[in-house]
Amino acid sequence: MLDPVLNTANLSRDDLLRMRHNEAGCFNDLPAHVWPRNAQRHDDGTVSIADVSLTDIAAEYGTPVMVVDEDDFRSRCRDMARAYGDPAHVHYAAKAFLTSRIAKWVAEEGLALDVASENELLIALAADFPTERITAHGNSKSDSFLRRCVTSGVGHVVIDSHQELEALERIAEEEGVVQDVFIRVKPGVEAHTHEFIATSHEDQKFGLSLASGSAFLAAETAHAAANVRLTGLHCHVGSQVFDAEGFKLAASRVLGLYSKIYRELGVELEYLDLGGGYGIAYTVEEEPLNVEAVARDLLRAVREAAGDLELTPPKVIVEPGRAIAGPAAVTVYSVGTVKDVHVTDDATRRYIAVDGGMSDNIRTALYGAEYDARVVNRNTEGAPHATRLVGSHCESGDILINNALWPDDIGPGDLIALAATGAYCFSMASNYNCFGRPAVVSVRDGKATPMVRRETVEDILAREVFVDS
Amino acid sequence: MLDPVLNTANLSRDDLLRMRHNEAGCFNDLPAHVWPRNAQRHDDGTVSIADVSLTDIAAEYGTPVMVVDEDDFRSRCRDMARAYGDPAHVHYAAKAFLTSRIAKWVAEEGLALDVASENELLIALAADFPTERITAHGNSKSDSFLRRCVTSGVGHVVIDSHQELEALERIAEEEGVVQDVFIRVKPGVEAHTHEFIATSHEDQKFGLSLASGSAFLAAETAHAAANVRLTGLHCHVGSQVFDAEGFKLAASRVLGLYSKIYRELGVELEYLDLGGGYGIAYTVEEEPLNVEAVARDLLRAVREAAGDLELTPPKVIVEPGRAIAGPAAVTVYSVGTVKDVHVTDDATRRYIAVDGGMSDNIRTALYGAEYDARVVNRNTEGAPHATRLVGSHCESGDILINNALWPDDIGPGDLIALAATGAYCFSMASNYNCFGRPAVVSVRDGKATPMVRRETVEDILAREVFVDS
Repeated sequence: MLDPVLNTANLSRDDLLRMRHNEAGCFNDLPAHVWPRNAQRHDDGTVSIADVSLTDIAAEYGTPVMVVDEDDFRSRCRDMARAYGDPAHVHYAAKAFLTSRIAKWVAEEGLALDVASENELLIALAADFPTERITAHGNSKSDSFLRRCVTSGVGHVVIDSHQELEALERIAEEEGVVQDVFIRVKPGVEAHTHEFIATSHEDQKFGLSLASGSAFLAAETAHAAANVRLTGLHCHVGSQVFDAEGFKLAASRVLGLYSKIYRELGVELEYLDLGGGYGIAYTVEEEPLNVEAVARDLLRAVREAAGDLELTPPKVIVEPGRAIAGPAAVTVYSVGTVKDVHVTDDATRRYIAVDGGMSDNIRTALYGAEYDARVVNRNTEGAPHATRLVGSHCESGDILINNALWPDDIGPGDLIALAATGAYCFSMASNYNCFGRPAVVSVRDGKATPMVRRETVEDILAREVFVDS
Repeated sequence: MLDPVLNTANLSRDDLLRMRHNEAGCFNDLPAHVWPRNAQRHDDGTVSIADVSLTDIAAEYGTPVMVVDEDDFRSRCRDMARAYGDPAHVHYAAKAFLTSRIAKWVAEEGLALDVASENELLIALAADFPTERITAHGNSKSDSFLRRCVTSGVGHVVIDSHQELEALERIAEEEGVVQDVFIRVKPGVEAHTHEFIATSHEDQKFGLSLASGSAFLAAETAHAAANVRLTGLHCHVGSQVFDAEGFKLAASRVLGLYSKIYRELGVELEYLDLGGGYGIAYTVEEEPLNVEAVARDLLRAVREAAGDLELTPPKVIVEPGRAIAGPAAVTVYSVGTVKDVHVTDDATRRYIAVDGGMSDNIRTALYGAEYDARVVNRNTEGAPHATRLVGSHCESGDILINNALWPDDIGPGDLIALAATGAYCFSMASNYNCFGRPAVVSVRDGKATPMVRRETVEDILAREVFVDS
């Protein structure tokens, strides 16, 4: 048996930091800034969330299974609402994770909801989400989507193009409605690997350019239109943002347009929607964005910038999705094959395969995402071993965690949970290799409640059309 | 209006070649090596496949819709069967695109079928696919999957680890069956951006190492086991391979193990499974692998190498998935928003958004894949314009074609079809943004037959569990 010598050549500083954490015997910890607020490891080594054992959930619902900590989710809604002074100014971004029950939680916490497709809207309506608190997004909204927004009484439609503004004005007129709208503006500020890029132009599909005058032109058109009412501007700086600087820079640029609109059109806009992008910690060494501090900093900056421009400060809206849903859920897998692979003549890497993979979590393959994972059915005590966590799909890129240094006593039948899988895992899941998508279970006060049942092969076949031939 | 000056800074040689092709007024062509064999543009500018108009299909089934040319699919099955001398030696890789009807076509053409999960097997069984022609793959097969292989009479199980070999022997014994198996071997040959890397070790999850002796050890174990029968070895060099060199190198390495097994265990193995990876052309400037020439070259090389080793040449098995399904299908979208975006003060890029995107085709975002797309409802005549084809998802990375130079007369309501979407689009599709997955329609001899109906919001909600609270 060869030593599990680590091939460190391809490891980043973060990889090495994480490995040191695990090497330090901390693999049984559940880092509080990454795991759900009600996650706890007990003396017998098992992990529970909201006093429900993950081992019990795995036994009852099978694996992979996503477990959502309801109180964690709700508490993050409240943190955001408190930080921004009004729950209705916090728009939960449905695209991160939407089911009827999630919509109900968001509604009960008083938050607003962002939808980005007609089906997201339909699910919100089916869940009786208060329509006036819904905002509709999308770079290419169909007439059908726009009409449903108008007729269902959606609070705001975020206009993404001149073409859409024209279509919405026509549809609102046909329906005899005056529709409140925001205009999405490209602020020329992009979050990019923990730095901000400030440009005048953004080469992406969303919004209308500040620099070219396109955004102001849309504001003029909206102002002149009888069936839309412009009440604010929207911008978005990116994903996984960790401080207020990008939001402040974007806000100050967009407020310039508020000033121009006030001076030239005589309208003071009521809202400033600064979009989403609030960063969360996926791994031990990351620090989540401090919601309260960023809000305080951002709100003050907006007040001051508005003051400098002699404007009434607009009400600031934010659109967290990941920051609310992400840390609230974990995905529990069963370990299948464990295999030591020679990476050089005298070094091996352990491949631990679980019973899911890129079908239930495409983020590692798609974005190079990193995750924190722990064995949750017992304490582990083995020596650190270079490890890669992979799925069961027929594809070598089917990787969940690329570089880890994990105890060498993890074996078949162990349960491994990935933390912070609440955002963009369920919502982007596929049936690759005809895998059924996992069950989703919410937990609260010692009680587990199924939210989404596991997908069966019958479900997968249900859309097939069988014809005689 | 500013000139659509092209920002060529980020363009590859292939991008520029493709742009020149389109600039040369060829945008109304349907490159025969990329499009389905029965695709045709008519004098009125509309495009049909197998004499069924894509405009009619879009009108009847809505968009996005995937259209599968049945005869194209079947003809590629036959090309492969002819090249390798026996249809049963050609294993269609179900992971590329599997429905019951696809399984039926494969069965009727006499090919074998590779499944990579229990659900793929269940779908094949539901379609009455001849079980003895099924081979089971997977890096981490569950006991349940292995048991179903054994009890349903699957022809071969491809053993991926010592752990699996042990489990299979136990299960086959319990079921009173002798199960034929291959062992998956790491040949140390990897396809990598049109070159091959030859190493002794492969740092990926599949198979057992040749170099370390692990593969021979598994062969010994299998040979000694009462309830498994070793009949061949399997290896796989990668994806999108365009010539025989990688396969030949892998074959010669693996044949070394045949020789060792013959000398030390006294067994001549019957089959040599060289896996998949047959490259197809996604874009004008790519050339598909020449199936016949590669087969001839490869079969001769195997014969010669076996002769040198004084072995009876094993029967060569190949596992095309993409090479059969890929070119057979196109995805038809409707154009929604068209927007010119300033990329510099004096250059714009046109963003054409369609009514699908990364939910029905994740390959551009996931692999940086490239596609050929054409307007299919009419001829276009505009001047070339730097264009990006994007989807309707709430994500800036939702791109279908990154860099194109397309006519500037494409507008809302036009139909755009992406060619060669038959492989890994349907199979990896998600409900991102709660989008329903597209309908799939097969066409043959002027007749369209629905294969999979469009997914509705009711389908998406069907797995939700509603409880009183």
